[in-house]
Amino acid sequence: MKQTIEVMVGNIGIGGANPVRIQSMTDTDTADCDATFTQCVELIGAGAELVRVTVNNDAAATAVPEIRRELDQAGYEDIPLIGDFHHNGHILLEKYPEMAASLAKYRVNPGNVGKVKGEGESNFEKIIKIAIKNNAAVRIGVNWGSLEDGVSPTVDAIVESSLKSAEMAVNFGLPKNKIIISAKVSAVPELVEIYESLNEKCDYPLHLGLTEAGTGMKGLVSSSAALGGLLLHGIGDTIRISLTPAPGSARIEEVEACRVLLQSLGLRFFTPQVTSCPGCGRTDGDFYRELAAKINNYVKENSADWAKKYPGSEKLKLAVMGCIVNGPGESAHADIGIHLPGKFEKAIATVHIDGKKHDLIKGDNIFEQFIKILEKYLSEKF
Amino acid sequence: MKQTIEVMVGNIGIGGANPVRIQSMTDTDTADCDATFTQCVELIGAGAELVRVTVNNDAAATAVPEIRRELDQAGYEDIPLIGDFHHNGHILLEKYPEMAASLAKYRVNPGNVGKVKGEGESNFEKIIKIAIKNNAAVRIGVNWGSLEDGVSPTVDAIVESSLKSAEMAVNFGLPKNKIIISAKVSAVPELVEIYESLNEKCDYPLHLGLTEAGTGMKGLVSSSAALGGLLLHGIGDTIRISLTPAPGSARIEEVEACRVLLQSLGLRFFTPQVTSCPGCGRTDGDFYRELAAKINNYVKENSADWAKKYPGSEKLKLAVMGCIVNGPGESAHADIGIHLPGKFEKAIATVHIDGKKHDLIKGDNIFEQFIKILEKYLSEKF
Repeated sequence: MKQTIEVMVGNIGIGGANPVRIQSMTDTDTADCDATFTQCVELIGAGAELVRVTVNNDAAATAVPEIRRELDQAGYEDIPLIGDFHHNGHILLEKYPEMAASLAKYRVNPGNVGKVKGEGESNFEKIIKIAIKNNAAVRIGVNWGSLEDGVSPTVDAIVESSLKSAEMAVNFGLPKNKIIISAKVSAVPELVEIYESLNEKCDYPLHLGLTEAGTGMKGLVSSSAALGGLLLHGIGDTIRISLTPAPGSARIEEVEACRVLLQSLGLRFFTPQVTSCPGCGRTDGDFYRELAAKINNYVKENSADWAKKYPGSEKLKLAVMGCIVNGPGESAHADIGIHLPGKFEKAIATVHIDGKKHDLIKGDNIFEQFIKILEKYLSEKF
Repeated sequence: MKQTIEVMVGNIGIGGANPVRIQSMTDTDTADCDATFTQCVELIGAGAELVRVTVNNDAAATAVPEIRRELDQAGYEDIPLIGDFHHNGHILLEKYPEMAASLAKYRVNPGNVGKVKGEGESNFEKIIKIAIKNNAAVRIGVNWGSLEDGVSPTVDAIVESSLKSAEMAVNFGLPKNKIIISAKVSAVPELVEIYESLNEKCDYPLHLGLTEAGTGMKGLVSSSAALGGLLLHGIGDTIRISLTPAPGSARIEEVEACRVLLQSLGLRFFTPQVTSCPGCGRTDGDFYRELAAKINNYVKENSADWAKKYPGSEKLKLAVMGCIVNGPGESAHADIGIHLPGKFEKAIATVHIDGKKHDLIKGDNIFEQFIKILEKYLSEKF
């Protein structure tokens, strides 16, 4: 697989031999320092390695250095803040040098920073010059919702627009290893075509995401479908999953989804994985579903502790299976597997450890017995 | 893209020029006719075009013809029932000819129907002969949880095992256009490799699915990541998404996920799609999230009615956007788009229709005004 140029965003490397980085964006009013700081911390806690905030007006621009200070004080010096700039980005970056200095990356959409060609210094050029001065990385973020005037949003036009803007930035003096490219659309097939083409045509790191993926199941399914195949073929150096949160729900779901995606592709490891079958007419539906849910919840609740106590435990593989058809085989692929016998049989489960049959557990407390085995395994192996 | 052989499963064509078919499997006890019939109807209602039931013992085998009759009487003559057979499949299919005749496809895992070679008639051969007699299709369903004895579950071994079993079936007299192949594993990278290889090496239709995908977000994300790239490259003729349902939750989620996946890939169209941004510091978080949720819910609640009243409305594209950065552009890609101005501005939204700016809507009832525009559009266009 092709290796892209490594771009340092603060202390975080993107591209090159770095792991695929997870990023997210706040939806608080940036001008509200406390709310934005709090949401940054939540996103970081969930796994965001870079956090973007919109810088859309004077109040937001004034708040950014303060948010940066609060993050530093709270121990998050290594998490870069990214500023999202649009129509007035060049004005704000010139007017607020402390803000410009406190951001490790500027996200710029050349389609809406005003004229990109023309006499004198263009708005885009102004932004690039400020980035150079501050050693900030720049994401050239083309989006089919906001191409340059008069450009029709075909796959080729989007790819060309991205590369042309990157070339302009280089001509303005920005080092190549300060450029990240994104070209997001909201349709999966076009997104895949665009990124396959970008991957062929340049070696800038690619920021990958399906824009405006939507709510609930649609957001998760379409984002995973779009990003999955690309990442598996080595395309994409940093990702964001753009979910529309349900009213009142946590912003962090999109970060959790990034982790789940990268781990399911075998690219990064964050938490023990539980493989479980869907159950069928061979399984005792309620008993099996409950066992699978309880084990999943136990893993979810304890994995952060395990990560500290048992380094490496994030690679642990568990299997929870409903019957003897695929149960023994799937258990053998896991570090620890448990499978029920199937319906109409007494409460009895077979446990495999490291691919070998370990024990039969029986009685009313199969879950508790399994947890005991799991905890013992963790303490012995990690 | 390569076209596979068309296999008729009852009246449903799989492979060839047919759309990617959605299938699912019951988790009721097959012997319980009423419960199984009821769940079949739920799965069909959600979009399953084929339904599989396990046939694991005498009681299940006896129930199958009755379930088939109930489905026929309820108007589901065209929905094929598939029997899932394992260790004792050959015995049950011989012992219950009415059951064998009432199934349009047998799912057979050569790895666990007993010896596949040897003297005399093997168990696998018995099953194939009964399928030929009943004009039933056969899914050769290799699974890394249940390979033949002594075969180690590498990608190559799984591919080879599938193709060898298909060849054996053909040698036993089964026409090539009665064979569907699956080779499911629970790890995404291996699954993709296996199916890419199968696609290269044969022209049998492929049944695609990540086996034992697991619960919740993990099940959805890993399945979509696995299937998305393959389907986009034309690999996969029928799919199942194997989610472990939460206790007490509906079995149909896995069918809904199949529809969402196929539609997000632009392969099939079931319901109007809503593109919506994740919101950011530029949007009024609560107001925007609620508007997106309300429009999504309205579409979900009404799309079945619209499908009857307005044929073609399943291709409708809506965009609900939080601000003016990507709002106008994303709206222009939709049939109807609405975008808010962003924060700190009065309640006002811009509506685009067919890519052109249509109207500004203001006041407290933006949702209601938008629905009026949407309903008018539907009644005029479809």
